[in-house]
Amino acid sequence: MKKLFVALCVLSLSLFAASTDPLPSWNDGTAKKNIISYVKDVTDTHSPDFIPEEDRIAVFDNDGTLWSEKPVYFQLLFVIDRVKALAPKHPEWKTTQPFKAVLENDMKTVLASGKKGLMQLVMATHAGMSDEEFDAIVLDWIKHAKHPTKKVRYTELVYQPMLELLAYLRANGFQTFIVSGGGIDFMRPFASESYGMPSWQIIGSQVAVKYEDKKIVRELKIRFIDDKAGKPVGIHYHIGKRPVAAFGNSDGDFEMMEYTEANKQYKTLQMYVHHTDEKREWAYDRKSHIGKLDKGLDYAKTHNWTIVDMKNDWKVIYPFELKR
Amino acid sequence: MKKLFVALCVLSLSLFAASTDPLPSWNDGTAKKNIISYVKDVTDTHSPDFIPEEDRIAVFDNDGTLWSEKPVYFQLLFVIDRVKALAPKHPEWKTTQPFKAVLENDMKTVLASGKKGLMQLVMATHAGMSDEEFDAIVLDWIKHAKHPTKKVRYTELVYQPMLELLAYLRANGFQTFIVSGGGIDFMRPFASESYGMPSWQIIGSQVAVKYEDKKIVRELKIRFIDDKAGKPVGIHYHIGKRPVAAFGNSDGDFEMMEYTEANKQYKTLQMYVHHTDEKREWAYDRKSHIGKLDKGLDYAKTHNWTIVDMKNDWKVIYPFELKR
Repeated sequence: MKKLFVALCVLSLSLFAASTDPLPSWNDGTAKKNIISYVKDVTDTHSPDFIPEEDRIAVFDNDGTLWSEKPVYFQLLFVIDRVKALAPKHPEWKTTQPFKAVLENDMKTVLASGKKGLMQLVMATHAGMSDEEFDAIVLDWIKHAKHPTKKVRYTELVYQPMLELLAYLRANGFQTFIVSGGGIDFMRPFASESYGMPSWQIIGSQVAVKYEDKKIVRELKIRFIDDKAGKPVGIHYHIGKRPVAAFGNSDGDFEMMEYTEANKQYKTLQMYVHHTDEKREWAYDRKSHIGKLDKGLDYAKTHNWTIVDMKNDWKVIYPFELKR
Repeated sequence: MKKLFVALCVLSLSLFAASTDPLPSWNDGTAKKNIISYVKDVTDTHSPDFIPEEDRIAVFDNDGTLWSEKPVYFQLLFVIDRVKALAPKHPEWKTTQPFKAVLENDMKTVLASGKKGLMQLVMATHAGMSDEEFDAIVLDWIKHAKHPTKKVRYTELVYQPMLELLAYLRANGFQTFIVSGGGIDFMRPFASESYGMPSWQIIGSQVAVKYEDKKIVRELKIRFIDDKAGKPVGIHYHIGKRPVAAFGNSDGDFEMMEYTEANKQYKTLQMYVHHTDEKREWAYDRKSHIGKLDKGLDYAKTHNWTIVDMKNDWKVIYPFELKR
């Protein structure tokens, strides 16, 4: 009996899946065709390209790939809000850069402070508390803060077509992971719900922690930067397998995609989201300070990587457009 | 239709589960009773102790908890075999400790070389190659090497009752993780299959790696020791949630279990496997060099932690006993 029910179950689910467009927010075009033909090919047990379920590892960048990243990475907007909230306890920030610039809304000077300045801001806002305290701060911010120009909460700025892609891959036995330059502990509290991924499938840059008094305490030290060549390294530490599919949007994702492409065992898929929609989202690539796509764009064109033209390939950008 | 089939499916699976003893290799006793009553309680939606599925995180030590660890950790036996295999390329090892002791089967001197000596052996055998080359070496060893006294392959020395416990927890919506002092890259190639866990749910000590020439290359550097206070830290980095159930066998697991016990949100379960079976396995605790259980044993007795008396609680130790 058990076997019969399981068989009927699988059959009805398959019929259900076959009758529905798995990517309804994608216009018909090369990108959608490439995704579907790849998934069909590698999940077909009769195909020479079949991949066993345990090796169907798909990795996704977050900023600019799963949600927007303008005017700057949303985590930097979180940092700015936190600096302002903490400022009353730090009168010295009024005269110390880069804190002074943050308090004066002088984003140009903030960005000009470079990696060193940004790290100072991150340390002042991300360390010196328990992990559970930090989770609560992030959750409170994500629940209340609004995007400066879009005027909606940040979690509303995830890409509807990418949510469909994540669900489609999972329905076909893929394990989906986020591999982001952003902070692992910044993403985990809300990204699980936003993207349908357990916390251990979300990988990012790390603040070092120590165990003290039955708690995890966040230290004043960056442990790992999950960007560029750090992405394959983060994949090794966390996943322990070479992916078969990689999705990014910038040169920061290049090594992760190249590492995936060099999988000798299986057929692979690489996809760049190209920001071409000035009206509905933002248009940027080669010269952008945030999300620069230059080297990767040239490489993609000569290496059969899929390029998503956001303007033409996506019917809608954000989930809230569906409700209109 | 789809919903009906899914409902029937779930129903038949539940009936199937209810009719079978989920832990057939466990004798009736306090340990078995504690496990089953905990699982029933936290998975019952009407219970005040109900835990939502996404928070059912169970962590397991490996050496001495999921498989044997005598005469020494199996990974050390792998190291010794590797030193011997590599010796022809290193004539200097004949006169250099601790390599000399390994080549002369002088285990006393090997162990006396302490942490520094052991690290030298680990570095000489675990670094300077790609991750995929190392995987292949481990898989070849695990397939062919035999335990010095038990005369079976190491993967046959997993504990049958613990395999049943892992399966029982997973059938009840728990996510199971290994959190071991052993090497993450030593375990991952075979532990997935042995324990039914994907590679990203296996956590352990790490050799640092770098990305080079489209490959992950293992460096001459330990990045992380996943033991004692390192275990909760490793749980934070990899899982990102405080567990609700923890299973160990030594003082090296104490902090992981204490961290689990201090979960303020949910009811928790802590369990120590106590090695009491001199005949079928090994008997050791307070004074053992490997797998010392001293502080933890006293703490467990006063803190309502479950202690498994291997001799009396387990009907069989190893899966091969079932086939006899």
